[in-house]
Amino acid sequence: MELKVGRKKKNTKTVINVKGVEIGAGEPIIIAGPCAVEGEELYLDEAQFLKSLGVEILRGGAFKPRTSPYAFSGLGVEGLKILAQAREITGLPVVTEVMDPRDVEIVAEYADILQIGSRNMQNFTLLKEVGLIKKPILLKRGLAATIKEWLLAAEYIVDSGNEQVILCERGIRTFEDYTRNTFDLAGMVAALDLTHLPVIADPSHATGRRELVGRVALGAVAAGADGIMLEVHPRPEEALSDGRQSLDYNEFKKLMDKIKGFKSQSILL
Amino acid sequence: MELKVGRKKKNTKTVINVKGVEIGAGEPIIIAGPCAVEGEELYLDEAQFLKSLGVEILRGGAFKPRTSPYAFSGLGVEGLKILAQAREITGLPVVTEVMDPRDVEIVAEYADILQIGSRNMQNFTLLKEVGLIKKPILLKRGLAATIKEWLLAAEYIVDSGNEQVILCERGIRTFEDYTRNTFDLAGMVAALDLTHLPVIADPSHATGRRELVGRVALGAVAAGADGIMLEVHPRPEEALSDGRQSLDYNEFKKLMDKIKGFKSQSILL
Amino acid sequence: MELKVGRKKKNTKTVINVKGVEIGAGEPIIIAGPCAVEGEELYLDEAQFLKSLGVEILRGGAFKPRTSPYAFSGLGVEGLKILAQAREITGLPVVTEVMDPRDVEIVAEYADILQIGSRNMQNFTLLKEVGLIKKPILLKRGLAATIKEWLLAAEYIVDSGNEQVILCERGIRTFEDYTRNTFDLAGMVAALDLTHLPVIADPSHATGRRELVGRVALGAVAAGADGIMLEVHPRPEEALSDGRQSLDYNEFKKLMDKIKGFKSQSILL
Amino acid sequence: MELKVGRKKKNTKTVINVKGVEIGAGEPIIIAGPCAVEGEELYLDEAQFLKSLGVEILRGGAFKPRTSPYAFSGLGVEGLKILAQAREITGLPVVTEVMDPRDVEIVAEYADILQIGSRNMQNFTLLKEVGLIKKPILLKRGLAATIKEWLLAAEYIVDSGNEQVILCERGIRTFEDYTRNTFDLAGMVAALDLTHLPVIADPSHATGRRELVGRVALGAVAAGADGIMLEVHPRPEEALSDGRQSLDYNEFKKLMDKIKGFKSQSILL
Repeated sequence: MELKVGRKKKNTKTVINVKGVEIGAGEPIIIAGPCAVEGEELYLDEAQFLKSLGVEILRGGAFKPRTSPYAFSGLGVEGLKILAQAREITGLPVVTEVMDPRDVEIVAEYADILQIGSRNMQNFTLLKEVGLIKKPILLKRGLAATIKEWLLAAEYIVDSGNEQVILCERGIRTFEDYTRNTFDLAGMVAALDLTHLPVIADPSHATGRRELVGRVALGAVAAGADGIMLEVHPRPEEALSDGRQSLDYNEFKKLMDKIKGFKSQSILL
Repeated sequence: MELKVGRKKKNTKTVINVKGVEIGAGEPIIIAGPCAVEGEELYLDEAQFLKSLGVEILRGGAFKPRTSPYAFSGLGVEGLKILAQAREITGLPVVTEVMDPRDVEIVAEYADILQIGSRNMQNFTLLKEVGLIKKPILLKRGLAATIKEWLLAAEYIVDSGNEQVILCERGIRTFEDYTRNTFDLAGMVAALDLTHLPVIADPSHATGRRELVGRVALGAVAAGADGIMLEVHPRPEEALSDGRQSLDYNEFKKLMDKIKGFKSQSILL
Repeated sequence: MELKVGRKKKNTKTVINVKGVEIGAGEPIIIAGPCAVEGEELYLDEAQFLKSLGVEILRGGAFKPRTSPYAFSGLGVEGLKILAQAREITGLPVVTEVMDPRDVEIVAEYADILQIGSRNMQNFTLLKEVGLIKKPILLKRGLAATIKEWLLAAEYIVDSGNEQVILCERGIRTFEDYTRNTFDLAGMVAALDLTHLPVIADPSHATGRRELVGRVALGAVAAGADGIMLEVHPRPEEALSDGRQSLDYNEFKKLMDKIKGFKSQSILL
Repeated sequence: MELKVGRKKKNTKTVINVKGVEIGAGEPIIIAGPCAVEGEELYLDEAQFLKSLGVEILRGGAFKPRTSPYAFSGLGVEGLKILAQAREITGLPVVTEVMDPRDVEIVAEYADILQIGSRNMQNFTLLKEVGLIKKPILLKRGLAATIKEWLLAAEYIVDSGNEQVILCERGIRTFEDYTRNTFDLAGMVAALDLTHLPVIADPSHATGRRELVGRVALGAVAAGADGIMLEVHPRPEEALSDGRQSLDYNEFKKLMDKIKGFKSQSILL
């Protein structure tokens, strides 16, 4: 497989620099925030709290893909504006999902990283569209995508002209339903070997259970993840989506301390 | 689940009439054609052959979703025009896939039924867009979609205003790799019970193996499918895509004879 | 794969004759009975009812594999004796499961066909043991077994000296949980091609839902199954196991009529 | 779920002491050895090498479950004797698999821990038999077993009278075939919460690829595994089974150094 995203074509690790934050440079970066941007005050408060704990990139959904047409689907452009405010206040870059090829331009106007969700991993129209812009793309693995298909989805973006792709393992769908999905640790490690692109982990969606998120995150860091993306909410039980898998502030602070311990002791190098 | 597509909301079967062909009215209808429209002469010849055997709807891809960006991705609008020609010559309605919300208008101009492929089953942007037109939509089940998610995807289309949705079971992804996918016969039967929409089967994509297609098709018909969609190619070994699962003319003719036998003996009623 | 069970080694269909009932000879045979033998009177009554409808082989569990150690696990030898009585009264052969290599002898004393359950498909100790006896073995596919592994399990039995193996597709485990398992129709058809052994279907365990069983059975017959194994119980809601998937007498009678219709019209030849 | 293996019944961690090695006491223990015992000299040499690196328990198969009846299936009792010799020379306890309930006695005579392989996780006959002895049982998760089913299999052993059960996550079967199985890190973490029994990881079988084993092992340790079981072979390319997933001596030594680093810095507490 002589892909542009493959190690055979280019064997030096791709480092993606987003407003000074380097992804793929050795230290795992932390991306955190609520599943959805639910309101201005709530989001700006959370952004500042997360910054104070050392979070490097903020996340938050403005356009939310929902299994049911009747579920809360995000604040749209209003949400994008709140994200931009958060960036101004904290200085941290923001990542948010884009679902519609016609929205790529406006999302790119507000966000620093555009996310392609797992349901759209093989939305080739959308992949080609985000391949035309100059901002990094965070490409989630599809819930039934093989590693090869995931890399080929990234290839669509790179082949369209955008080499800044971050892969994100977020769990695959299996028969096990105690967890929301099955976090594929070995698949993440394999992707780190097969491609020169940064590969991060999303233990929140992978597990769907708050109590498992922290240990799975530590496992992913120890196995070499270039970053971790986490859902955090001040009151998870009130979240408009994914509350079951969101860490509260206290849980998140404890996890950050452990990850910092890992980093400071250079165990991962 | 009190969905608009559900039996609880409406317990009479939805019958979709496409240029006189009734889908969901009791007799299973046959949709056939090559995976992709590869050229004018080839397609028009095939269309006439298929009509002569009793095929009721023609299929053929103009916009092809492909796992790799380097694979043949269809003739685009040129392909749509060939489909329209085939309809004119044969009088049969045509179905073809749409992948991009911006293409819905032009595809609807040429095609009688618009297909949403399995990779796009949760492309909610696209679902809402085809919900705005007045033509029937053939919605394939996603390769890792539960029956519930499949019905909710249909609900997006119906809730947007288009009640003419045909569901298509085309195999799900499992550990078994002898077949391309695992045809979920019981899932198809369950969908027939849970929704009032017509449900058809696609044994070509489900099995990925020509020698299995016929018997799986007969099984689907006996279990109550409202129709069967099949890939047929005059010389499968030369097909630009999916040759391995396409029936040749001889195989297809034999299968049609068996299905006619089923129909004439009213075994299915 | 030059296996003894493979078509390359022997291309004539193996027909297994159990007390005059021929399995693999063209006509699909019907095996039916309750999940477990729950008591003498109940079982003997049911056996006579099933015979009156044309059932050719009786089933009933005496040793029941149960996920929990606290669930009803069968009547053991007492159950075997009831099965033998049923055979005497009806003249029909009986099939029952054996789980322990040390029980093979006693089960073979009472039963006409010994069943290896899906959980034991790769219990190689047991496979070798039933390979030493002279009675037919019904080998269920493991719930996560590939077709190749299933055939290799049969190979263990045949290689140990017993060529009378009947394969049974009973559903595989996938992400879909609306049904208990996913009935793999194409896998059943593939097995019919790859091996000369008879292949039957068990729609009761495959679907786990009474209302789906009949149509899945018809689908399997139309696709070429050499037989169908069904769970039937006079009062499914009172069954000690698997009531949810057992047909009641009325449902079973209707299904038998449809299958007879199939047979009499020779549609399957 | 008020199981004897559950936290609700007993909330203090079960610590299993095998000849002085404590499993479940906080520090992850390392179990290593070749897949199969292939010969006396080879095994004794390896045992001493592994001991010199700090391995705490030796592994090696004498009775090997093999998918094909024609593959190497172990040295049997001869292999058990070699394991006992290795224990004498090194002082380390040994673990080996038992497949046949009739072999439990003799395997228990030679081995310190008896392993139930994944194919036998629901071989209830065998589970009850090992529940009658006084030695620890290492219970591998079945390749399609849910966490609940895995705990219920342990319950069979405990309910039969043997409370010394060690659970082992070794990968589940999914659609992804780049790795041999899918290592379920979150499932391992969930099991650590749901049961008081020790839970270890087997990254060799989980990944099936030597180059992934080390990082998956580190991930499992960081996530809280009570131990790691690894396949090591002096010349993996010559191994009679599982060579593709066995670490060579050099790779294993590097991994041991990293794991020791983890331990010494108390990061895991």
